Amino acid sequence: MKEIQVGLIGFGTVGTGVVKILREKGDLLSSLVGVPIKLKRIADQDLNRDRGVPVPKGVLTDQVEQILEDPDISIVIELIGGLEPARSFILKALEKGKHVVTANKALLAHKGNEIFKKAMDSKLDVGFEASVCGGIPVILALQQGLVANEIESIFGIFNGTSNFILTRMTEQELPYSAALKEAQQMGYAEADPTLDVEGLDTVHKLSILMYLAYGAPLNPEAVFVEGITRIGALDIAFAREFGYSIKLLAICRKEGSLLEARVHPTMIPKSHMLANVQGAYNALHIKGDSVGDILLYGQGAGMMPTGSAVVSDLVNMGRNINKGIAQRIPQNLSIQRFKEKGLSFKPFQEVMTHYYFRFSALDRPGVLSTIAGILGANQISVASVIQKGREIEGSVPIVMMTHEARESDVQKAIQEIDRLAVITDRTVIVRVEN
Amino acid sequence: MKEIQVGLIGFGTVGTGVVKILREKGDLLSSLVGVPIKLKRIADQDLNRDRGVPVPKGVLTDQVEQILEDPDISIVIELIGGLEPARSFILKALEKGKHVVTANKALLAHKGNEIFKKAMDSKLDVGFEASVCGGIPVILALQQGLVANEIESIFGIFNGTSNFILTRMTEQELPYSAALKEAQQMGYAEADPTLDVEGLDTVHKLSILMYLAYGAPLNPEAVFVEGITRIGALDIAFAREFGYSIKLLAICRKEGSLLEARVHPTMIPKSHMLANVQGAYNALHIKGDSVGDILLYGQGAGMMPTGSAVVSDLVNMGRNINKGIAQRIPQNLSIQRFKEKGLSFKPFQEVMTHYYFRFSALDRPGVLSTIAGILGANQISVASVIQKGREIEGSVPIVMMTHEARESDVQKAIQEIDRLAVITDRTVIVRVEN
Repeated sequence: MKEIQVGLIGFGTVGTGVVKILREKGDLLSSLVGVPIKLKRIADQDLNRDRGVPVPKGVLTDQVEQILEDPDISIVIELIGGLEPARSFILKALEKGKHVVTANKALLAHKGNEIFKKAMDSKLDVGFEASVCGGIPVILALQQGLVANEIESIFGIFNGTSNFILTRMTEQELPYSAALKEAQQMGYAEADPTLDVEGLDTVHKLSILMYLAYGAPLNPEAVFVEGITRIGALDIAFAREFGYSIKLLAICRKEGSLLEARVHPTMIPKSHMLANVQGAYNALHIKGDSVGDILLYGQGAGMMPTGSAVVSDLVNMGRNINKGIAQRIPQNLSIQRFKEKGLSFKPFQEVMTHYYFRFSALDRPGVLSTIAGILGANQISVASVIQKGREIEGSVPIVMMTHEARESDVQKAIQEIDRLAVITDRTVIVRVEN
Repeated sequence: MKEIQVGLIGFGTVGTGVVKILREKGDLLSSLVGVPIKLKRIADQDLNRDRGVPVPKGVLTDQVEQILEDPDISIVIELIGGLEPARSFILKALEKGKHVVTANKALLAHKGNEIFKKAMDSKLDVGFEASVCGGIPVILALQQGLVANEIESIFGIFNGTSNFILTRMTEQELPYSAALKEAQQMGYAEADPTLDVEGLDTVHKLSILMYLAYGAPLNPEAVFVEGITRIGALDIAFAREFGYSIKLLAICRKEGSLLEARVHPTMIPKSHMLANVQGAYNALHIKGDSVGDILLYGQGAGMMPTGSAVVSDLVNMGRNINKGIAQRIPQNLSIQRFKEKGLSFKPFQEVMTHYYFRFSALDRPGVLSTIAGILGANQISVASVIQKGREIEGSVPIVMMTHEARESDVQKAIQEIDRLAVITDRTVIVRVEN
């Protein structure tokens, strides 16, 4: 083999990072693979924008077929994001016998079962290191480094935008809206931040990790999700008083044959390493039955970190191509394992955890006892209460931390409480992990 | 291929962990490889000790030749540690066409050039994930995950024993000797703790990482080393006052074509993630030019974490054997890169950093000015001074933090100061990283 030819679809931020790395480190990468890697063609709709990296004449095209139909290209990198046409391009590439590298977590979470099956049937590989936690080698850890482990739990901060906002709210005591605005000004949040702040992006990434760890079929619907938009500066201040930080956490825990999977703002003890993950950083905490606790930390997004992950896939795929092999890591087996082991998702209503409630109530006698009564009637036992006289628009915050309680009981109780005439706003619920 | 047969040399703590994992997870591991992995034979001098894991009759032998001479065994795991006979066994295994997995950092640091060359010439692989940071997949990260990066620096806590001792000294304000005793009682330190507390074990691990990151020929002599035995409770208290923690740190930094490589007690800001690595845990902080900062954290030693790393090598090697390939990752290239790039080790005397000095001086007028004068004459500029009246056996501690200074100047100045009649004990030097 003289060289491995690569086609890149999508010349946006991450695509530019990939092109930069391939340009600057071509010799190094070729020596790490064993044969040269050549970026033969880049397809993008915008042929004119200056990305700050020179591209030889003839490489850039707006015709994606020039990549998909080129028999000399053996690896296609998909970096356009979104479901369509990314899905069609990837399926077409696989049909044409090309390996695929993608950073597209939304696509894998929603259509990964189809894509991985197609790759398996075609005896091809799909690299997706860049789809979770950017430059942190988390896919590698699960597919290779931790194979001797049953994964007992996964805790993670997978969304830099949300973590940046929560960090600014904590450090600067900003309200949510001001922190979001700052994140947008600094380029950490998009004009429409929904996917990030509502937790959906985190759900996509958790789904991919559960596919690797348990063979769980890719299905974002199976993961409970709640975003950070209702967290107030007040909640962060109370959390601090109780010794906690609030993070948008992805949580997966295996108990027997049940998998708990949820994404929501979570109070974690300030001393936990995840509590110290600040700004736009990501981290993954895994507990394995052999290895114990592992934490992987780094930049989860951005041109160069994500480019680094894409290129690592390219190198590892290139090494396989150079050796004339594919499917070195049996990708389908994890799904079989899920079925063989009789695993299933635990209904969210049955989750047991600790809770923080912030009630907004009129400052009247008897309110506290009414609330406590409803909680008690729903088997929710209160561990501590803070009621401080700071009146905000006529109501006072009453904060409670509970002992372990059941999600269904909590939802029932809070619905009942929120209907009381003395309650002036929807109760804020933050789940707590100790 | 029906199955991959494995021979294990050394049925000690880690060996027992490997046998446990292979017993309990045989089916899972076979499915992850594609063919069954069979532990055919275990060689150990002690045939009678109960390791708490059942071994089928005929598997355990005290004749290592039964592994090395068995043509059906394709992977040999070496877990006896030390230089000889481990080196001879590994070379013999390679001669006989067997791949090797080892956790032996001392051997790789001292004899790795010979072993890796032999493996390369024989077209075989050596897996050594377990040699650095136990269960944390650090070798994997450098060989595969971070290949798109020039590594700018490596900072690490690689020795659980020393970190446990320093943690106990910090948390409980214990003197070194009491913390060491506790570590020994808890099984974290050996009866002779020299390799751990004098930093040699950390040097071995740093040498291996520098081989991967820069192709630096394996040579522990090229790394400056100083242990933790002279750190006192007083130094830890002063460090805290300045906002630092003291850790036994492995440091490697690339500047131009020079590699700085050193292992010594180091003050790092309390807010740095490495400062929060407590007890027997390990962590590796890498800075790559694409990926930025990466931290990998977990248990660096112990039966199951290290067993987890050994088995991950076994699985990855098994995947290659199953596909009929070897040397998927070109192991020799990194060495070539070192030469091609004209890299060399920076002489330790030329290192520039900040310093903490604790002088033990008689409480006499003029001492401070004498010390400051000698420092100044050696181009060492003092950033802050603490002199407190606590007299210990007739002398007082005088503590100084310096601006950036040159190691050779510091050694010269401290030698001169330690010869002063008013200085009652050797000055404690702790280097500082900000």
